[in-house]
Amino acid sequence: MITLDLSAASARDALGAHGDPLTDDEAIDAFARVWWGHLAEPGDADAGALIGALGAAPALEAVGQSVPTPIADLDAVAARQAWARWRPRLDGSAVRRSLRTATLVGLRLLTPADAAWPEALDDLGPHAPSALWVNGSLEAVREATPISVVGARAATSYGEHVAAELAAGIGAHGGAVVSGAAYGIDGAAHRAALAVGSPTVAFLAGGADRAYPSGNAGMIAEIAEAGAVVSELPPGSAPTRWRFLQRNRLIAAMGAATVVVEAGWRSGSLNTAGHAAGLGRPLGAVPGPVTSAASAGCHRLLREYDAVAVTCPDDVWELAGGPGDPRGGPPPGAVDGVQRRRTDVTTRVLDALSPRADRTVAEIARGAGLSLEETGSLLGLLELEGLAGRGGSGWRRA
Amino acid sequence: MITLDLSAASARDALGAHGDPLTDDEAIDAFARVWWGHLAEPGDADAGALIGALGAAPALEAVGQSVPTPIADLDAVAARQAWARWRPRLDGSAVRRSLRTATLVGLRLLTPADAAWPEALDDLGPHAPSALWVNGSLEAVREATPISVVGARAATSYGEHVAAELAAGIGAHGGAVVSGAAYGIDGAAHRAALAVGSPTVAFLAGGADRAYPSGNAGMIAEIAEAGAVVSELPPGSAPTRWRFLQRNRLIAAMGAATVVVEAGWRSGSLNTAGHAAGLGRPLGAVPGPVTSAASAGCHRLLREYDAVAVTCPDDVWELAGGPGDPRGGPPPGAVDGVQRRRTDVTTRVLDALSPRADRTVAEIARGAGLSLEETGSLLGLLELEGLAGRGGSGWRRA
Repeated sequence: MITLDLSAASARDALGAHGDPLTDDEAIDAFARVWWGHLAEPGDADAGALIGALGAAPALEAVGQSVPTPIADLDAVAARQAWARWRPRLDGSAVRRSLRTATLVGLRLLTPADAAWPEALDDLGPHAPSALWVNGSLEAVREATPISVVGARAATSYGEHVAAELAAGIGAHGGAVVSGAAYGIDGAAHRAALAVGSPTVAFLAGGADRAYPSGNAGMIAEIAEAGAVVSELPPGSAPTRWRFLQRNRLIAAMGAATVVVEAGWRSGSLNTAGHAAGLGRPLGAVPGPVTSAASAGCHRLLREYDAVAVTCPDDVWELAGGPGDPRGGPPPGAVDGVQRRRTDVTTRVLDALSPRADRTVAEIARGAGLSLEETGSLLGLLELEGLAGRGGSGWRRA
Repeated sequence: MITLDLSAASARDALGAHGDPLTDDEAIDAFARVWWGHLAEPGDADAGALIGALGAAPALEAVGQSVPTPIADLDAVAARQAWARWRPRLDGSAVRRSLRTATLVGLRLLTPADAAWPEALDDLGPHAPSALWVNGSLEAVREATPISVVGARAATSYGEHVAAELAAGIGAHGGAVVSGAAYGIDGAAHRAALAVGSPTVAFLAGGADRAYPSGNAGMIAEIAEAGAVVSELPPGSAPTRWRFLQRNRLIAAMGAATVVVEAGWRSGSLNTAGHAAGLGRPLGAVPGPVTSAASAGCHRLLREYDAVAVTCPDDVWELAGGPGDPRGGPPPGAVDGVQRRRTDVTTRVLDALSPRADRTVAEIARGAGLSLEETGSLLGLLELEGLAGRGGSGWRRA
């Protein structure tokens, strides 16, 4: 058994300036969430489920116990495995070091209690990040409709041209471009957004203080000035393949819609697209020459994922805001596309359904953030409307 | 009142060699149908309805009467207008001239009674042609799955390249390319089909003896050798804008699927695509650069008509034959894709529905070639399956 000092005094001491505006309880929660960022790799649903069930600090204390704590979705075997992978990382000094580094390099800590927390990420359910590190600010982004624009690193000049056109159109009409700061499509989209003076957000697969790829360091610094460079990983963390794939889920969840500009047949962008589709976010793909391997993934999205063909910024707005959107400017009520979508609880249930995998009512209720009863009756409604159906082992989107 | 000599002797005399294998009744019907080809412009649904209700020869005799004959779908006003536009063309000598010319230039007359008649055209209901003139033969085409490949005359080299790739793939795998012999995409598709030695069919907007456009005369002659050059218009007829648009309905109906390779925003190919969609035929569109005006119509089809993105010949087969088709060769049972689809009467009702306009049960029964009772109960079935729905003024495809 490892005894963790999760007292308010200890939390405040570790948080330093990060704890300034917080109550004692909030400080303890924030400290525990930073700790969880060290314990669990991004997207660890067992961690998310445990934090959701117990709260971040009690969940952390439970991990301090040598006896694993099975909860609803974490059976004895899964709990034992989780404890086994988390406990070797229960090093409080690393957590304190992260917080000190963050202060030194000017990263801001965000937790779900924060007003600036992007609520769209909560749609990830147990896969949501426990905390975020931000270089820059998400304030400007909250005023805009966030659109995720992603694509291949090995982009063609056609792809980079179209990415820039779309991003400039999104920025010029009150949107914010969300992407991954990579070479190719990502970079073209961020740069065009910066060029029209609009906020843009880059989610990184390593620490938010680590400009990756280094060739884009200058651009990443500009993104932090105009918007935000964000990571769920502690400062200094190295990007790994797993972290790139998990980073993609944040890009997909953050966007009111996701547009893939160019992607090879097996491009990582298809992973982002899959996350977007799984979250019920509108998915667009830019067509290109069928003779171009760099567009093969986009055509696959059009054929297999029912992605919408996107050819111009107006198409992006229609995708993000539905047919009611005026062309040439953001609709008055659409200051935050994601926010607006989530005011309707039916939409939340729909978002929690997958078109490809059955989900239990409990899973859907969790994903939608609704009670079992409410979820059950909304599923019935959706079934009547032909939008949801019963599969062999649960419900799926029709 | 104009007395028409529609006796067997008169019919046989006029038909000459065209009447050789026919019984007296068939000869009278064929003669009357040729006459109707002179009376009515292509796609005249009033003519189709009247012929459907009375038979070609009695319908023609009715037009000889100065008093219009209202029938089920042809009310007194419509009948009066129809009589007014048909009667000035009641010139029997022109009909006899057509038949002589056809014999001279080697055109074959086809009527629905003929074994070689393409049954797929019957899906057009009252808009079906009364007869066809064929230069070449449709026999080889009957063994193949017909695929319509159409597109802009003002095609780019990209579009012509892709059209050729698709057509060669269709031809190589036992399909027949159906198109309109125009410059650009049509010509590229026909030529590639000819190059791989597969049958191909060109529907012309003027007489089948009139190579149009003249720049493609050599190709049109080759099409007649390897397949068929077909028109519903009497020999010698000039192509008109109306006839081009109506010709498109034949291309759409003939294909087990229609693929648009390149099309401008307002291209005539979209008219063909609209006919295909209206007939419930699978519709494909080839994506291209969003920066290319020649692909704007294709992207429109992907966005607004739910066309399937087609990138290679395999995609065409999947479109035409459904997911069960093997790749790389035609499925054993799919010698004639259209034929196969039409064995199921439910499919016929579905084909008779439009996704965009309400149709009455009578219209649907007519389109499907089924009784009112049978149509009514099949519509009920389709409604249960969520494939059809009731609109304000009839039924539409869901």
